[in-house]
Amino acid sequence: MNLVVVGAAGRMGQALIRVIHQTEGVRLSGAVERSGSPFVGRDAGELAGIGILNVAVSDDPLPVFAAADGVLDFTTPAATVEFAGYAAQARIAHIVGTTGCSSQDDDAIAAAARHATIVKSGNMSLGVNLLGVLVRQAAAALDEAFDIEVVEMHHRHKVDAPSGTALLLGEQAAAGRGFELADNSVRVRDGHTGPRPGGAIGFATLRGGSVVGEHQVILAGEGERVVLSHLAEDRTIFARGAVKAALWAHGRKPGLYSMLDVLGLADK
Amino acid sequence: MNLVVVGAAGRMGQALIRVIHQTEGVRLSGAVERSGSPFVGRDAGELAGIGILNVAVSDDPLPVFAAADGVLDFTTPAATVEFAGYAAQARIAHIVGTTGCSSQDDDAIAAAARHATIVKSGNMSLGVNLLGVLVRQAAAALDEAFDIEVVEMHHRHKVDAPSGTALLLGEQAAAGRGFELADNSVRVRDGHTGPRPGGAIGFATLRGGSVVGEHQVILAGEGERVVLSHLAEDRTIFARGAVKAALWAHGRKPGLYSMLDVLGLADK
Amino acid sequence: MNLVVVGAAGRMGQALIRVIHQTEGVRLSGAVERSGSPFVGRDAGELAGIGILNVAVSDDPLPVFAAADGVLDFTTPAATVEFAGYAAQARIAHIVGTTGCSSQDDDAIAAAARHATIVKSGNMSLGVNLLGVLVRQAAAALDEAFDIEVVEMHHRHKVDAPSGTALLLGEQAAAGRGFELADNSVRVRDGHTGPRPGGAIGFATLRGGSVVGEHQVILAGEGERVVLSHLAEDRTIFARGAVKAALWAHGRKPGLYSMLDVLGLADK
Amino acid sequence: MNLVVVGAAGRMGQALIRVIHQTEGVRLSGAVERSGSPFVGRDAGELAGIGILNVAVSDDPLPVFAAADGVLDFTTPAATVEFAGYAAQARIAHIVGTTGCSSQDDDAIAAAARHATIVKSGNMSLGVNLLGVLVRQAAAALDEAFDIEVVEMHHRHKVDAPSGTALLLGEQAAAGRGFELADNSVRVRDGHTGPRPGGAIGFATLRGGSVVGEHQVILAGEGERVVLSHLAEDRTIFARGAVKAALWAHGRKPGLYSMLDVLGLADK
Repeated sequence: MNLVVVGAAGRMGQALIRVIHQTEGVRLSGAVERSGSPFVGRDAGELAGIGILNVAVSDDPLPVFAAADGVLDFTTPAATVEFAGYAAQARIAHIVGTTGCSSQDDDAIAAAARHATIVKSGNMSLGVNLLGVLVRQAAAALDEAFDIEVVEMHHRHKVDAPSGTALLLGEQAAAGRGFELADNSVRVRDGHTGPRPGGAIGFATLRGGSVVGEHQVILAGEGERVVLSHLAEDRTIFARGAVKAALWAHGRKPGLYSMLDVLGLADK
Repeated sequence: MNLVVVGAAGRMGQALIRVIHQTEGVRLSGAVERSGSPFVGRDAGELAGIGILNVAVSDDPLPVFAAADGVLDFTTPAATVEFAGYAAQARIAHIVGTTGCSSQDDDAIAAAARHATIVKSGNMSLGVNLLGVLVRQAAAALDEAFDIEVVEMHHRHKVDAPSGTALLLGEQAAAGRGFELADNSVRVRDGHTGPRPGGAIGFATLRGGSVVGEHQVILAGEGERVVLSHLAEDRTIFARGAVKAALWAHGRKPGLYSMLDVLGLADK
Repeated sequence: MNLVVVGAAGRMGQALIRVIHQTEGVRLSGAVERSGSPFVGRDAGELAGIGILNVAVSDDPLPVFAAADGVLDFTTPAATVEFAGYAAQARIAHIVGTTGCSSQDDDAIAAAARHATIVKSGNMSLGVNLLGVLVRQAAAALDEAFDIEVVEMHHRHKVDAPSGTALLLGEQAAAGRGFELADNSVRVRDGHTGPRPGGAIGFATLRGGSVVGEHQVILAGEGERVVLSHLAEDRTIFARGAVKAALWAHGRKPGLYSMLDVLGLADK
Repeated sequence: MNLVVVGAAGRMGQALIRVIHQTEGVRLSGAVERSGSPFVGRDAGELAGIGILNVAVSDDPLPVFAAADGVLDFTTPAATVEFAGYAAQARIAHIVGTTGCSSQDDDAIAAAARHATIVKSGNMSLGVNLLGVLVRQAAAALDEAFDIEVVEMHHRHKVDAPSGTALLLGEQAAAGRGFELADNSVRVRDGHTGPRPGGAIGFATLRGGSVVGEHQVILAGEGERVVLSHLAEDRTIFARGAVKAALWAHGRKPGLYSMLDVLGLADK
């Protein structure tokens, strides 16, 4: 399977290139960076520290996509929407790990999924996706006597809060409780807040150091707590999950899928 | 429903008496302590700090059981085996939170369950029993590339290790993996241990201060961990669960049940 | 030593009454509630569940203070400012565990400390005060390559955020770094935040269930973290610390002190 | 400063080579593996994934040491004792991160330190060494009413338990309490243990996945806990600390030092 990495010179881009290089059944056929990037024209393998791969970084995605079977994309919402359009034109798989998409972005991606096979998840790791399923079940089994809080920590360079994964987990909790997250979440607490609103899902965000990504969902009742957590130790788990998703999507009919489909947990 | 508390003068005994006093649909009809206890003859309510209940602590269980519908028992294995026999004679419910039973003890309790309605769990809390179900699912979903460890902490007075709850969680993990815990567990690590045996479930025990009970199940893979935890903040949760189990068992046919039956999670 | 409990019918008030009752060298001489409270006239011991103490709850603090050696106060900023004035008139000890005071409130309390012996801390526990000292040292030893975050969790009834203790710990961290907390803190993260500002101290707040109080200070550097935490299991630790502070303050000259003075850690 | 890496083909050896390559003021002058290793003769830089450095891996340490200013050593006790002897002959610095040394090994290393400048620590990270100092202070400030437990987790390949760092932290706690660790530690809990012995320091060991190294020291009292932790996210922190120690040791007179000397915390 021929794969393209977009955002190829970034940290996730390089990790994707290394994992593709180590994985059987896939090869790097293209690498894309934005116009004006100093890395355009450089060898993608060399950038990723694994030696010359004879794949030059390009700033022209369309011909690169046309020659590939799938695209791995951990970039920005605006770039992802553009890449989804190109993937639809090329009728290939588009694996999207980008976070922070607006509902308008999501609509554009869904439209592209009429012709592209898109797998989109706020988090590409096996563990996080399992955690989402467990959170939904726990939220359903323990009634509103248990308050739900989602707390996450990431490295100091992360620019959005809460993380896409924290929101994904919050949505699973809301689904377990049978309501919409947007109607029942507390995203900020500062000063005189009053007592905690019953039934709401709370979020808290920590930033610092080089933390790859840690998420905790706390269900706190009278006298006891259940805490469900995921700790990512290195970025490779997301790259591995994305390559696994690409292999799953290869040859599958167009549509919008998630990692739960990839992992066979979609009906749990 | 008339309930007897055995081990009435102990910490759990007093907690049970207080919770019975607060809960609708149940009343304390008897309280039992071992022969020679200085508390025999004292009023059970007064011992528990909630005022006179006109129930004197007795050292003769049989007549007390005969006048009751159920017995709440967080004592010792030897005492519990004896009490199960009396409960069978009286054909009443026997709710057992005792830990540390040998397989011989378990056989005796199972025999008594031909005539008594016995609910026995290593841990009576809602959260712990939910956790067990989630642990089983996680152990099944994540394959042997994920190592499983169970760690627990309790107060300095606890005399056995690992806790009954830790073993219960270990058994759930083993069930998820499709093997027997006894054949695949590591209970001690000290000195030159060699690399971790693949597939084994490891245990670690912490003791100190006044910790009511904390349990963590860690599934550790390459680059990521899923951690499922329970924290008990006060002993009341076990007493509440035991009373809930007694109400569930009232009028049900004899047999050996667990908290999963009480909570409707037995088939999950 | 004769002690008055203000806010006597609240949760902390009752805990204080019970600890005074158990502690040698102190006795409850008075109990105060706000005007109009349904508890005025009731016996304070009976309210606290320890039987009749022959101390009626009063809504007139001045005569009660005049007959006492010290006042224990975990109420609200406005009430505490008023009580500090009465303590100054009576020239007695005033132990203040109230949180959420404005700088104006603090000025009024400092003024009262010209005639009253006031011990004021955001948190009265031995462990938290030790933690503050350790946090200051860690913040000084690890330079700005380590980002500092303070996260706390409390029960669902708490109405302010972050907790007084979290701010106390943040101030210790700022002191270790040699700057003012107010100039360098991040209290809210939501949406597009941009990268973490170097040198700032971040806060995050969790609320849920019956959690008594948990605080964590994280120092996150490149590739490693130091985490310093305190977990309160029951409210009694604050009551015990307050009574210990009262005994320390008895007969000491007027002034504004903290728990570090009480614990002999003021110069560390 | 010319540095030799011993155990050059192992995981820590490769990390050391990469950090030396990135750090100003040091260069790799030699690389050593045991006789018969398939890596002897290979280029050390290529092994470490950073390209040709023109330093061939040798199995003859003495001439390599003679041409260097310092040796970085995370190998085995037997190898380290041998290397310490060679470092003494060459009168150079020997930075030792090896764990599991017997007291006999320690004696041999101390003897070599009459002619070599040896820096030996159970753990080379800044954070762990700071933690040791804080643990000693906390153990001294909180009396025996607080039980001390040390828990650690490492990856599945680690062959000894508890880790050298856990023992280092236990020794700091014992020093704070004024006793010897060997006389007052609990290393194993299984079955009927009886109540926790007052004053003892307990250890617990977790193994799994790819965890680089996490240590927690818990001080558990009545109603509250202080928890002091360190989390290593990648092995690089130990390599960075070792290189920092080598720079500190360069030109210093022979003797046996620790990371506390390097960090200026020796008198805290």
